[in-house]
Amino acid sequence: MVKENIPDQMTAVVLDSYTGVDALRIERRPVPQPGPNEVLVKIAATPINPSDLAFLEGRYGFKKPTPVVPGFEGSGTVVSVGNGMMGRYLNGKRVACVSQERGDGVWAEYMVTTMRLALPLAASVSLEQGAMSVVNPLTAMAFLTLAKEGRHKAIVQTAAASALGQMFNRLCKNEGIQIINIVRREAQKELLKEQGAEIVVNSNDANFSQHLRDVCQQYQSRIAFDAVAGPLTSQLLKAMPSHSKVIVYGGLSYEPIRAEAGQLIFEGKSIEGFWLTRWLSKQNFLQSLVTWQRAQKLIMTDLKSEIRKQYPLNEVHDAIKEYQSQMTGGKILLRPTL
Amino acid sequence: MVKENIPDQMTAVVLDSYTGVDALRIERRPVPQPGPNEVLVKIAATPINPSDLAFLEGRYGFKKPTPVVPGFEGSGTVVSVGNGMMGRYLNGKRVACVSQERGDGVWAEYMVTTMRLALPLAASVSLEQGAMSVVNPLTAMAFLTLAKEGRHKAIVQTAAASALGQMFNRLCKNEGIQIINIVRREAQKELLKEQGAEIVVNSNDANFSQHLRDVCQQYQSRIAFDAVAGPLTSQLLKAMPSHSKVIVYGGLSYEPIRAEAGQLIFEGKSIEGFWLTRWLSKQNFLQSLVTWQRAQKLIMTDLKSEIRKQYPLNEVHDAIKEYQSQMTGGKILLRPTL
Repeated sequence: MVKENIPDQMTAVVLDSYTGVDALRIERRPVPQPGPNEVLVKIAATPINPSDLAFLEGRYGFKKPTPVVPGFEGSGTVVSVGNGMMGRYLNGKRVACVSQERGDGVWAEYMVTTMRLALPLAASVSLEQGAMSVVNPLTAMAFLTLAKEGRHKAIVQTAAASALGQMFNRLCKNEGIQIINIVRREAQKELLKEQGAEIVVNSNDANFSQHLRDVCQQYQSRIAFDAVAGPLTSQLLKAMPSHSKVIVYGGLSYEPIRAEAGQLIFEGKSIEGFWLTRWLSKQNFLQSLVTWQRAQKLIMTDLKSEIRKQYPLNEVHDAIKEYQSQMTGGKILLRPTL
Repeated sequence: MVKENIPDQMTAVVLDSYTGVDALRIERRPVPQPGPNEVLVKIAATPINPSDLAFLEGRYGFKKPTPVVPGFEGSGTVVSVGNGMMGRYLNGKRVACVSQERGDGVWAEYMVTTMRLALPLAASVSLEQGAMSVVNPLTAMAFLTLAKEGRHKAIVQTAAASALGQMFNRLCKNEGIQIINIVRREAQKELLKEQGAEIVVNSNDANFSQHLRDVCQQYQSRIAFDAVAGPLTSQLLKAMPSHSKVIVYGGLSYEPIRAEAGQLIFEGKSIEGFWLTRWLSKQNFLQSLVTWQRAQKLIMTDLKSEIRKQYPLNEVHDAIKEYQSQMTGGKILLRPTL
């Protein structure tokens, strides 16, 4: 292996305050050095996810001290390693990489992260798909695990036309699990139908509440994965049969959830949250390994994300604007090497 | 045993429509006959519980066809039995009795119920305390079971000065479990303090939110039993540490619960409901027997309810008015034989 020539300076996207996209700027800054048990990854590609937008606005699970480089996941090549057992193994490897809870993120030419957050990519996985192989694919696999643990034969999901929603449809189809898909536009409905989804309900239809109730009762769907929160969650609680659980994993509506005491008490319904970080932290080493290897096998097929457009780092503002204009029409990638 | 002389007619409280107290009237109607596996109980005493008020207003878990006799629990003597194995055993026994999900309730001189809802009272238990030995005592025992299953060392409860709240304080004290009690009046705070409660917080204090947060964090209390719902539930969700669960068992505020998506997702908080009927239905025969015998042993001490006033059936309107004027100042009993 030829030693990569690492420059002193790099281009990075930097967030100055948790006030959203406008607080982002492009900066030249020193390439970071990996410490013990850390690796330096030369970033090839990194997506914009809903969780990144929440982070920019200070609505994510934690805030890092600013100025900070955003970006939760990406892909690249390990070009330098600190001391630690895994170092020699990872050096030179193509990896999916996740930013540390403390420290800079992936939207830069280089990122330092801990060795356990640099996950070797299978040879069959491209750097583009590898860049999106953690957040959505592992969430879809976690949902499938939760559904199977609860022996659910029918599931409701909101924001169903999202990259994650599409993946989850494919995974469930393989398992013979019925999905009741909720979207908010006709075009999204058609997209999912083209992909083979049987049940798609548009939340902007006049008879949405009744329609949702009818299908939830017909299929006795007792678990929902909800990225929207707000009034839609309340509609889910109303529509689903007794002893149903709504698992909220996103707050795209920016609105609070309302629940009636009677739904909880007499109908035995419940509301909880899902956070991939927490779910992964509960998995032991072997479970994590199995999950990752299964995901890698499916990344180029069932767990593939459509790519709509790619941008260099210094066009991050345009990239985010494009993403926000149509969040379910394929992913936007930042490409530091463009 | 001398055969009881059963009259043809009886006095009963009857609800005509689910519009609250005003829809109640006193009626003379035939004494019902027990069918197979049923018993006829001559009612000695029956309390007014919050769940009865919810039933009168149509806010309970189910509605029965009207006109109907309300009243979920009471005590009395089995004076006649239908065919069935348990009949001879129960005949003449003093029992706590619960109304069937279909059929008339306890606010009458006589009630027919199924044999399994007529629970023999221990000799040490008075008919007054026996009349209140199901709804509150078994709920308190269920809460303790849930707390112990989750290995909770500190618990939050709202409406803490209620009969149930007082019982739960005594049960938890015996188990060395700390309770953070929430009340809404200073007099209730003093009452609980006099009974030995260490932590009592008044939700009408100016610094309530901060105070609640401080004690919840100090004691790392991660389970709450909430009879109030509405904004107070939202305050609980905010105040409690991450991975907390709020279990709603009443809707005294008549208001919806609001939750933020971020609390569920990133803080791992959840909301669910508790309904005694459901909890009991999940217990097997042996568990039920053990629970009942434990409760009977404590009914005259830790699971005792204070009695404020007793009324004949035909003064039910006054009785309810008195109860509503001060729901935590001792129970109101209806006494058909007064």
